[in-house]
Amino acid sequence: MEKDRLAAFSDGVVAIIVTIMVLELKAPHSADWSALIPLAPTFASYALSFVYVAIYWNNHHHLLYAVSRVDGRVLWANMHLLFWLSLIPFATAWMADNDFARAPTILYGLTLLLPAIAYYLLTLAILRADGPASPLAGALGRDVKTKASIALYFCAVAGGYFASPLLALAIYVGVAIMWFAPDPRIERTVAGSRDQR
Amino acid sequence: MEKDRLAAFSDGVVAIIVTIMVLELKAPHSADWSALIPLAPTFASYALSFVYVAIYWNNHHHLLYAVSRVDGRVLWANMHLLFWLSLIPFATAWMADNDFARAPTILYGLTLLLPAIAYYLLTLAILRADGPASPLAGALGRDVKTKASIALYFCAVAGGYFASPLLALAIYVGVAIMWFAPDPRIERTVAGSRDQR
Amino acid sequence: MEKDRLAAFSDGVVAIIVTIMVLELKAPHSADWSALIPLAPTFASYALSFVYVAIYWNNHHHLLYAVSRVDGRVLWANMHLLFWLSLIPFATAWMADNDFARAPTILYGLTLLLPAIAYYLLTLAILRADGPASPLAGALGRDVKTKASIALYFCAVAGGYFASPLLALAIYVGVAIMWFAPDPRIERTVAGSRDQR
Amino acid sequence: MEKDRLAAFSDGVVAIIVTIMVLELKAPHSADWSALIPLAPTFASYALSFVYVAIYWNNHHHLLYAVSRVDGRVLWANMHLLFWLSLIPFATAWMADNDFARAPTILYGLTLLLPAIAYYLLTLAILRADGPASPLAGALGRDVKTKASIALYFCAVAGGYFASPLLALAIYVGVAIMWFAPDPRIERTVAGSRDQR
Repeated sequence: MEKDRLAAFSDGVVAIIVTIMVLELKAPHSADWSALIPLAPTFASYALSFVYVAIYWNNHHHLLYAVSRVDGRVLWANMHLLFWLSLIPFATAWMADNDFARAPTILYGLTLLLPAIAYYLLTLAILRADGPASPLAGALGRDVKTKASIALYFCAVAGGYFASPLLALAIYVGVAIMWFAPDPRIERTVAGSRDQR
Repeated sequence: MEKDRLAAFSDGVVAIIVTIMVLELKAPHSADWSALIPLAPTFASYALSFVYVAIYWNNHHHLLYAVSRVDGRVLWANMHLLFWLSLIPFATAWMADNDFARAPTILYGLTLLLPAIAYYLLTLAILRADGPASPLAGALGRDVKTKASIALYFCAVAGGYFASPLLALAIYVGVAIMWFAPDPRIERTVAGSRDQR
Repeated sequence: MEKDRLAAFSDGVVAIIVTIMVLELKAPHSADWSALIPLAPTFASYALSFVYVAIYWNNHHHLLYAVSRVDGRVLWANMHLLFWLSLIPFATAWMADNDFARAPTILYGLTLLLPAIAYYLLTLAILRADGPASPLAGALGRDVKTKASIALYFCAVAGGYFASPLLALAIYVGVAIMWFAPDPRIERTVAGSRDQR
Repeated sequence: MEKDRLAAFSDGVVAIIVTIMVLELKAPHSADWSALIPLAPTFASYALSFVYVAIYWNNHHHLLYAVSRVDGRVLWANMHLLFWLSLIPFATAWMADNDFARAPTILYGLTLLLPAIAYYLLTLAILRADGPASPLAGALGRDVKTKASIALYFCAVAGGYFASPLLALAIYVGVAIMWFAPDPRIERTVAGSRDQR
């Protein structure tokens, strides 16, 4: 039950985060098609953030699937992740309202970077609770993807600051594409450990 | 657990979508009954969209009930469905605020058409994951209703564009009535496959 | 699973209904205690509606607990109940913004009456699905409380129209107190049918 | 199932409470970094309230984990807790909008005090339903932490009134730090009672 309730609470928070972002898409007063054009940055930002939050949900889903024990440290590491995820709607709105200007686009990168770090800390907390014999341990031992995205978010933030916000945006889209598929290492390892039972 | 958590997350998102639409019904300043009259289009649009989202939830419920395996492709097909569903509140608000003018009424049809296509892709992803021996395979083989609604939404959009938005509205209401009952084919087939166990 | 998912979805919708009402309590600009005084009607209305929605949730919880079979009719009867419940925040806001004026207070009574009728229809749909041997059948056979509240809401609406909105309000508070305890008939009958197994 | 649904509904309400607070962080119109500075009190208040609501969720999670029986009194004691928790976003917004002025900071303390009392009443209701043989009974017999925080909230409210709102704030932060770790007494006792089975 412990784990199920942790998953259920996280699902609730993530479902709300993903859905309140759509409230930024405010119905225009005019009934002309052209009234939708100014909403394009908001729609594009919403779609990007929806994909990002969906990636986090998918990975969280896979991660918890393989967990057998949840302790207080895991609960707080999970809350820490949810806290940073909850800032994505704010950063999305600021970026969209200002047509991808420099500061908001960099801040958006920070709100992607911080949950990435929190996610990494959550995997460490889970490994600690599950012990070194956990099927997760091997799977995450060479967790290239998480570390790569943290590095890429740093590059994006630096690129947005020193070069152009468009470079940062391009990296955000690239990382989203990289994460699109669920993590085959976890799926494979968990499937393997189930087959051995 | 995989399937349960997918259902729980979808339930959360759909519950929020259905409930934030009611926020468009803003309490008027005047305390007279007549102050409710201008809210009539908003109320009618809310009721129609509530029924539509409820139809999706009911069908999603029946669909997942019959599923035995969920993979990464199914997770993303489900997210894709939720993304398009999340745009229904926006299109509902735009249509209601403009008293069913042409462009908003056509856009509303598009926000019905896109989740219909996404729902169809989700059934394909589930069939792929479950394999051809799935009890769903036969049930959905002749999935007339899903295909018919996709065709009818196309007609509604075209009708709204070339003829009148009222024609489009009439088709939206008609499709809702057609879907009102849950899908007896799935219920019957699943019940049958359970009886054989 | 059927029943669990129905309960989970209803929980989500009811949780959102109960929580979005608190958004009407807007933080005043002034930092003086006196700035809270104009919020008193909003706070009182929120508390009353919170209790009403909590009563519905409690009764719904007890009702579903005793259910063994859920069919399409039950799903739609449940959606019908959720639809009317979702209007309570709107009526609450209108009533509170107008200091319990006649029309908003009567409308509030209607938004209590309609889910009461929907709840009654839901129990009929469940009895139909569960069959006459259901432990619910006897328990609900003499469902005095549900029928009494429907009658009382009618009185409140009529009293608000012909006499004073304060009479209507007094009846709303009275019915809430009457429902406060969970339904001992269902608890007793279900406990009994479990003991016999 | 009784207990699971109670937990699920509470999770939903708490997830919404925690997430709607972030809506107070409104995207500024300017795209300059300096536009974020006025948001600092709102961000700090959000972080503090997030931690408080997370503490309640963690403790609620641990409390329900050890529960075996839920009755009508427990349901209402839980609703009572959720009601007071739902006022935290309002008090957070008022405090943040007024830069931690006296009255809002004291009210914030009251919205922490009231759920603390409600939580204590909930543990009493659960002990009553579970009976004196419950593993919770011993664990909570010397429930120093809950009683200490109630006393500290009283001190904070008095300190805010007679001395400075900053003193109140310091106590709020201190209590949050004290509660940060989940309650080892419950975890240990429950683990113990499981080991004996």
